[in-house]
Amino acid sequence: LHAVGRRYETVSLLTDYGLDDELVGVVKAVIRDLAPHASTIDLTHGIGPFDVRGGSLALARAIPYLPDGVVLAVVDPGVGTSRKAIAVEVAGGAGVLVGPDNGLLAPGVALAGGATRAVELDNPNYQLEAPGATFAGRDVFAPAAAHLCNGVDLDELGTALDPALLVPGMIALPRTETNGLHAEVLWVDRFGNCQLNVGPDELASLTAGSGERAGAIVTVTCGDERRGARVVSTFADLAAGAVGLVLDSQGMYALALDRRSAAAELALGPGDAVVLSAGEDDRPAEPTPVDLSRRQ
Amino acid sequence: LHAVGRRYETVSLLTDYGLDDELVGVVKAVIRDLAPHASTIDLTHGIGPFDVRGGSLALARAIPYLPDGVVLAVVDPGVGTSRKAIAVEVAGGAGVLVGPDNGLLAPGVALAGGATRAVELDNPNYQLEAPGATFAGRDVFAPAAAHLCNGVDLDELGTALDPALLVPGMIALPRTETNGLHAEVLWVDRFGNCQLNVGPDELASLTAGSGERAGAIVTVTCGDERRGARVVSTFADLAAGAVGLVLDSQGMYALALDRRSAAAELALGPGDAVVLSAGEDDRPAEPTPVDLSRRQ
Amino acid sequence: LHAVGRRYETVSLLTDYGLDDELVGVVKAVIRDLAPHASTIDLTHGIGPFDVRGGSLALARAIPYLPDGVVLAVVDPGVGTSRKAIAVEVAGGAGVLVGPDNGLLAPGVALAGGATRAVELDNPNYQLEAPGATFAGRDVFAPAAAHLCNGVDLDELGTALDPALLVPGMIALPRTETNGLHAEVLWVDRFGNCQLNVGPDELASLTAGSGERAGAIVTVTCGDERRGARVVSTFADLAAGAVGLVLDSQGMYALALDRRSAAAELALGPGDAVVLSAGEDDRPAEPTPVDLSRRQ
Repeated sequence: LHAVGRRYETVSLLTDYGLDDELVGVVKAVIRDLAPHASTIDLTHGIGPFDVRGGSLALARAIPYLPDGVVLAVVDPGVGTSRKAIAVEVAGGAGVLVGPDNGLLAPGVALAGGATRAVELDNPNYQLEAPGATFAGRDVFAPAAAHLCNGVDLDELGTALDPALLVPGMIALPRTETNGLHAEVLWVDRFGNCQLNVGPDELASLTAGSGERAGAIVTVTCGDERRGARVVSTFADLAAGAVGLVLDSQGMYALALDRRSAAAELALGPGDAVVLSAGEDDRPAEPTPVDLSRRQ
Repeated sequence: LHAVGRRYETVSLLTDYGLDDELVGVVKAVIRDLAPHASTIDLTHGIGPFDVRGGSLALARAIPYLPDGVVLAVVDPGVGTSRKAIAVEVAGGAGVLVGPDNGLLAPGVALAGGATRAVELDNPNYQLEAPGATFAGRDVFAPAAAHLCNGVDLDELGTALDPALLVPGMIALPRTETNGLHAEVLWVDRFGNCQLNVGPDELASLTAGSGERAGAIVTVTCGDERRGARVVSTFADLAAGAVGLVLDSQGMYALALDRRSAAAELALGPGDAVVLSAGEDDRPAEPTPVDLSRRQ
Repeated sequence: LHAVGRRYETVSLLTDYGLDDELVGVVKAVIRDLAPHASTIDLTHGIGPFDVRGGSLALARAIPYLPDGVVLAVVDPGVGTSRKAIAVEVAGGAGVLVGPDNGLLAPGVALAGGATRAVELDNPNYQLEAPGATFAGRDVFAPAAAHLCNGVDLDELGTALDPALLVPGMIALPRTETNGLHAEVLWVDRFGNCQLNVGPDELASLTAGSGERAGAIVTVTCGDERRGARVVSTFADLAAGAVGLVLDSQGMYALALDRRSAAAELALGPGDAVVLSAGEDDRPAEPTPVDLSRRQ
């Protein structure tokens, strides 16, 4: 049994459109015109142009905090090609994610408990007619979001898709090898903290349980750098100039320095590889044979 | 017969204020304070400082998609001089555009079907008193927008003006000369696509009808560059490295390269002149006598 | 007698989070989730990272124009330390300011007439549980703002504080010394106008009443520069190339040049010291013994 005719009150927006021109405003105007009762929330429009991975991660960080409703996410390097425009229902109808089928929505869908239904947005009755090339945010995604808010059932918007066949996300899981836990930087925040794809369970497994305790030392290898990093519970517990591993506000471990940028100190960016291994000291960095090639 | 007492629910905002300080927020606070039922939509606040032409074009691109209501647009290099603050009613009262009388509103008014009434915003009863210099967005335009939302009739806000005497827009029409269609770049979008002031009718006239068909070749001359450009219907149809003319999402032709910036490749910016002429090939660029001086 | 159970409809937001990632969006999502009836207004999220002084001044400039409701302000270099998270009631309950107790809120509270009540936000029942480090905007301040909107009384949110013991603001008053009025630059706006901490009363005191009249000349000394500046009532009254003192839209005097940046011309930034003294001419700058050391 599907939720039929459910109305939504909120559309949360995430794009790589930037705010320099009127693209975001036009998307919101279309939603307002078609569904005047719905409110919009700008999650961010500052995703790097065409950075599907970065957009999918920002959406995943936000999604546990979103109110019930529609999410409209557009980072779409394949616009104009055969990539599908989709809408994915999650949590039995509590939410619907609308966007391109390129992996952007996948981590958010997974965090919301997985897809219950999905459609390709191919019903032209629920789209705007473009005077030229299609502007998918304006002509396809915004009308879909608005019609969903008005209670149009997902199945009306287009052809049903098997959710299992949607393009998966691009987020690597860390993997254990003989020399340690091979992780990667998911995100560098505005303070230079480097969020890794490593949560408490993975860190605990690293050092037979000692890694999860505040105070444990982990050796961090990235590029030419090798550092000891203390596991601490808040940024203020970091020793001056020393690298730490802090359980951040999303519940993932981040490489951090107190009031300095770990990204700058360790020359790390999103997608870069990091190896964590059991360590007993926090000697200063010394050149060592590099374990990993930097990506990109 | 005027629409009297009509209330509005939406104020769409476009300014050159930027988002670095609280100017936009204060404008929205004033609207919220005076007309709590009204919602605001930020079209953009990223118009270049004092770029009236760029602002008027962004407004024109957005206006076909706006819900009924008030538009508050401020790009105002003449603030503090004798330029008038105005409100212009369009579409028999479906919308009112509020802003300075410097051409900023003119293309939007025209696209909305022309002005049905206009006033100068000179009634101090509908303005805020400033503690010093007038901040027109806060003290004049935001209160006018809010009072319109509350059902105050346009005529209450100030002295009636003849809409025909408002400052016209600054958008040139393309003109046909012996060597081709003299056009100009209206807008460079974030991908570097260069929107021209050329629609399907003008392009059709260029080559006795062949120019409008996808696949036709047009010679593009701009500055020292001369290129053959194929008319294509989507960005994905562009050949690698070749310049194309794509009917964009506003229904205007844009110079474009597949996944590259046409603006960078051709050294074009807003307002630059381009000549389109009938062409049969797409040879690479070669130096030719320049037909046009670059503007600015 | 306190206002108990008062509900609010608006949350005005000011942070240093920027718009590049989803932080602001998550704060708004939390408010929307907990208090769906409340609207948010973005005053600005462009305060310089950790610039408490700049944030407190932007809030002070905005606060006279805010509708009744909650203000959520976060510029928080001390997050994770012992600085308190607070909520401060003003105007007998017309508004509540929520943020860190580091001086950020103090000028706004003063401009709103002073605090009537204050609490430390230490009741975990009105906070979100973080999966790791606390993200105070999301986990503490946004829930507090939302619960206030829902009619939860201030006293429910935590331990009562004496408003007189809150951290004061960092805004210096100008002081009169033998060589003139020692002032400082509060704010450089996007046009380069340098707002001083000098209002009409202070300027009047400077020259036995002549300084307040448009047309009076004041000598401005800053760093190595010494200039005569004419007091003018609008920016358009400035002579070309000459420095003027304009009563700006917040009712404070600003150093300004017509269509040029006074900040660039005089090498001034926020917090820099300026001495105003009685003057009779507006000779061009000449090197003079410097009266003041530049701050920072």
